[in-house]
Amino acid sequence: MSQTPDNAVRQYIDQHSDTFLDDLKEWLRIPSVSAQPEHADDVRRSADWLTGKLKETGFPVTEVWETAGAPAVFAEWPSEDPAAPTVLVYGHHDVQPAALADGWDTEPFEPVIKGKQLYARGAADDKGQVFFHTLGVRAHLAATGRSTPAVHLKLLIEGEEESGSPNFRTLIEQHRGRLAADAVIVSDTGMWSETTPTVCTGMRGLVECELSVCGPDQDIHSGSFGGAVPNPATVVGRIVAALHDGQGRVAIPGFYDGIVELTDRERKLFAELPFDEQEWLRTAKSYAAHGEQGYSTLERIWARPTAEVNGIGGGYQGAGGKTVVPAAAFVKLSFRIVAGQDPARVEAAITQWVEAQLPAGVRHTLTFSGATRPCLTPLDHPALEAVARAMGRAFEQPVRFTREGGSGPAADLQDVLESPVLFLGISVPSDGWHAPNEKVELDLLTKGVEAAAYLWTDLAESLRT
Amino acid sequence: MSQTPDNAVRQYIDQHSDTFLDDLKEWLRIPSVSAQPEHADDVRRSADWLTGKLKETGFPVTEVWETAGAPAVFAEWPSEDPAAPTVLVYGHHDVQPAALADGWDTEPFEPVIKGKQLYARGAADDKGQVFFHTLGVRAHLAATGRSTPAVHLKLLIEGEEESGSPNFRTLIEQHRGRLAADAVIVSDTGMWSETTPTVCTGMRGLVECELSVCGPDQDIHSGSFGGAVPNPATVVGRIVAALHDGQGRVAIPGFYDGIVELTDRERKLFAELPFDEQEWLRTAKSYAAHGEQGYSTLERIWARPTAEVNGIGGGYQGAGGKTVVPAAAFVKLSFRIVAGQDPARVEAAITQWVEAQLPAGVRHTLTFSGATRPCLTPLDHPALEAVARAMGRAFEQPVRFTREGGSGPAADLQDVLESPVLFLGISVPSDGWHAPNEKVELDLLTKGVEAAAYLWTDLAESLRT
Ligand SMILES: [Zn+2]
Ligand SMILES: [Zn+2]
Repeated sequence: MSQTPDNAVRQYIDQHSDTFLDDLKEWLRIPSVSAQPEHADDVRRSADWLTGKLKETGFPVTEVWETAGAPAVFAEWPSEDPAAPTVLVYGHHDVQPAALADGWDTEPFEPVIKGKQLYARGAADDKGQVFFHTLGVRAHLAATGRSTPAVHLKLLIEGEEESGSPNFRTLIEQHRGRLAADAVIVSDTGMWSETTPTVCTGMRGLVECELSVCGPDQDIHSGSFGGAVPNPATVVGRIVAALHDGQGRVAIPGFYDGIVELTDRERKLFAELPFDEQEWLRTAKSYAAHGEQGYSTLERIWARPTAEVNGIGGGYQGAGGKTVVPAAAFVKLSFRIVAGQDPARVEAAITQWVEAQLPAGVRHTLTFSGATRPCLTPLDHPALEAVARAMGRAFEQPVRFTREGGSGPAADLQDVLESPVLFLGISVPSDGWHAPNEKVELDLLTKGVEAAAYLWTDLAESLRT
Repeated sequence: MSQTPDNAVRQYIDQHSDTFLDDLKEWLRIPSVSAQPEHADDVRRSADWLTGKLKETGFPVTEVWETAGAPAVFAEWPSEDPAAPTVLVYGHHDVQPAALADGWDTEPFEPVIKGKQLYARGAADDKGQVFFHTLGVRAHLAATGRSTPAVHLKLLIEGEEESGSPNFRTLIEQHRGRLAADAVIVSDTGMWSETTPTVCTGMRGLVECELSVCGPDQDIHSGSFGGAVPNPATVVGRIVAALHDGQGRVAIPGFYDGIVELTDRERKLFAELPFDEQEWLRTAKSYAAHGEQGYSTLERIWARPTAEVNGIGGGYQGAGGKTVVPAAAFVKLSFRIVAGQDPARVEAAITQWVEAQLPAGVRHTLTFSGATRPCLTPLDHPALEAVARAMGRAFEQPVRFTREGGSGPAADLQDVLESPVLFLGISVPSDGWHAPNEKVELDLLTKGVEAAAYLWTDLAESLRT
């Protein structure tokens, strides 16, 4: 694994970092909050600004792509080598809502550098991590003497990620041909810490459903009828309890069918990470680790499927008590799934299991909402090795591997484009994504530029073989 | 069991029934809704009206008793026989809210007789059933030629029953001495049906609690943390599921300790009642009978303790899904208890059991609200036999026995006054308690007067032995 930095790359970055930061700050001043309709114009302004900047960077093709919601930005810079592989970079130009009153020390849309940190909404999630590709590709060209990148480079920067990417799948299905790539680089994740650079190798998928159980036609008196008719809140409680077995495994028959188990190498690499469970619990604002037996906390959140109750309700909700048998109760469940699990198969298993749990005399509805597939790149995939080498050169040390417990549009890219998905991110947990005082570490941002500059040559080689 | 009506009683009732009904209608015109502060004056007016009418009836002592809420009415008519036993009649003069707009065919506080039915809020619950004692005691005197009742007769007619009797226990503790009685007659229940006169022999008690379970300090992301920390909604679901065993019995250790089991005679008498389970299910607005194995529906609701979920909640409550591990969840539980179960012992058993269910890493609060004791009079109690005989004479057929699944202030009377509690009621399920178009059957109301007229002589004998 090469860890040799390239002086030409570093020099180029040094020379251009002031302009790079000025530009990024200009972009961060646009409050492109996709979840707030009053910022719709700002999201569009952000797309236009980015399009202009990518053109300036040298991308011969820059386009604003409309969706049913906020616009995305597409850019393309073909390699002069027609045989070069194609790489698509994914990120987003919209941001989470933010207001000074939420607890920010400075205006969230007035970027400010304090010491070695740049504070602004979007500094890390995701404008900073999108933007490092602009200086990255220029440094790649400068250091290699090329006039076009070593790969056919494409960028797709969506505008609705912070609103749940409602139109993303439609967008990429619509532009499937133009987005075709041999690999996808997702620039919207982070690393373990400042001192432990890592590459993420996959994300969990997600299946969500809501179960409603109806008993009596209306709330009935528990004195007159209690104990003699089915209580839908009891039924829902029993289903919640039956979700897991005594070992903390999901007890739905067929749920684990086909899953890709952790390899010994992955378990070993996870175990070597400097994980402090007490500190993790503080971040989780929780008071005990708890979950599937036989797996560590990192394995549980990164690599194991789960069943979680997100919401439950039914019957009397006011203060004090009310002696009723409730007419209805509900539970909202989400299942994280891992590589090898198919959302449709998981949904079928859940449906069959729920129906088997219900006693006579209750009616139910079970509604699934849009599922997300898991994605995982094997540790020995050549493209992943190239990403790890690029990060290793930037950080001058071997990188380690992580996964993400969450679920995201990366899976749609993997699914629709049928390409391996790699993750290149330099954000750290303290960056405060979605929180007040979001920031990016300037040193790490520079490492991101550097890694992006190293990546294309190496990846062109890796994907060609 | 005597079933011989008394012609003198019947004649007296016939002669006075017009005045009796006119008076009752006057009382029913007072909208004594205790739950609505704007009717506070009406509740007081109702107490004053009743006090005046009881004085007119002949009660030498009539008093309005103040509480922290609405006033109660107390009246006393000592027997000329100083050795006569003392009997306290309980009822209430407040009523449920009612408005034409709720679905009444006529104004709820403008009593109207249609055919053999008197329609008005309070016609059956409880003004009609309180008021039959006024004509009843006069018929008793007229038919026996007595100038005072055969028992020392006391009446306590409270004004907050429809608001949960919040000050009732304090009231009777405060007046314990003046309320002292050898038996309590509760006139606030009903019979099986028009053609199956019955006497209620007991009510279930009630223990209520709310359990709150806290996990993370705030809702946390189920992608980042799910599967690795305890989920309070899951914990609550497991507690709900663990409440019952596979036979539908409450699975809390010690819960059944000391309970008075149904006797074979009671089970046989219950089984002989003309019970139609399909019709009962329609009344319960439910779709299946369900409960403790080995017991019939009537046994389940009248004579078996239960654990019921009245409300459950936690986590995301809005439309769609939200991938969080909730910070907290709650469940509101009520336990019906039967004779032999002590609320304090049951609460201790619940507390111990709940604490044993909780995993590491969650905090909880368990709050009990005011409990109600069960009450039960054995079938062979002489006072109960006297009540059954009085009802049998009025209805000219042997009466059968029921219980009430609900819980009420009767238990406080039994508890504070240490007296057996008997139930004398002529209302039927179709009377529509708490519902629009509440009514009382005039023929049954007359039977109530008649039973009250027969009761005192017989009860004086029974209690004396
Ligand atoms: Zn993001
Ligand atoms: Zn009542």
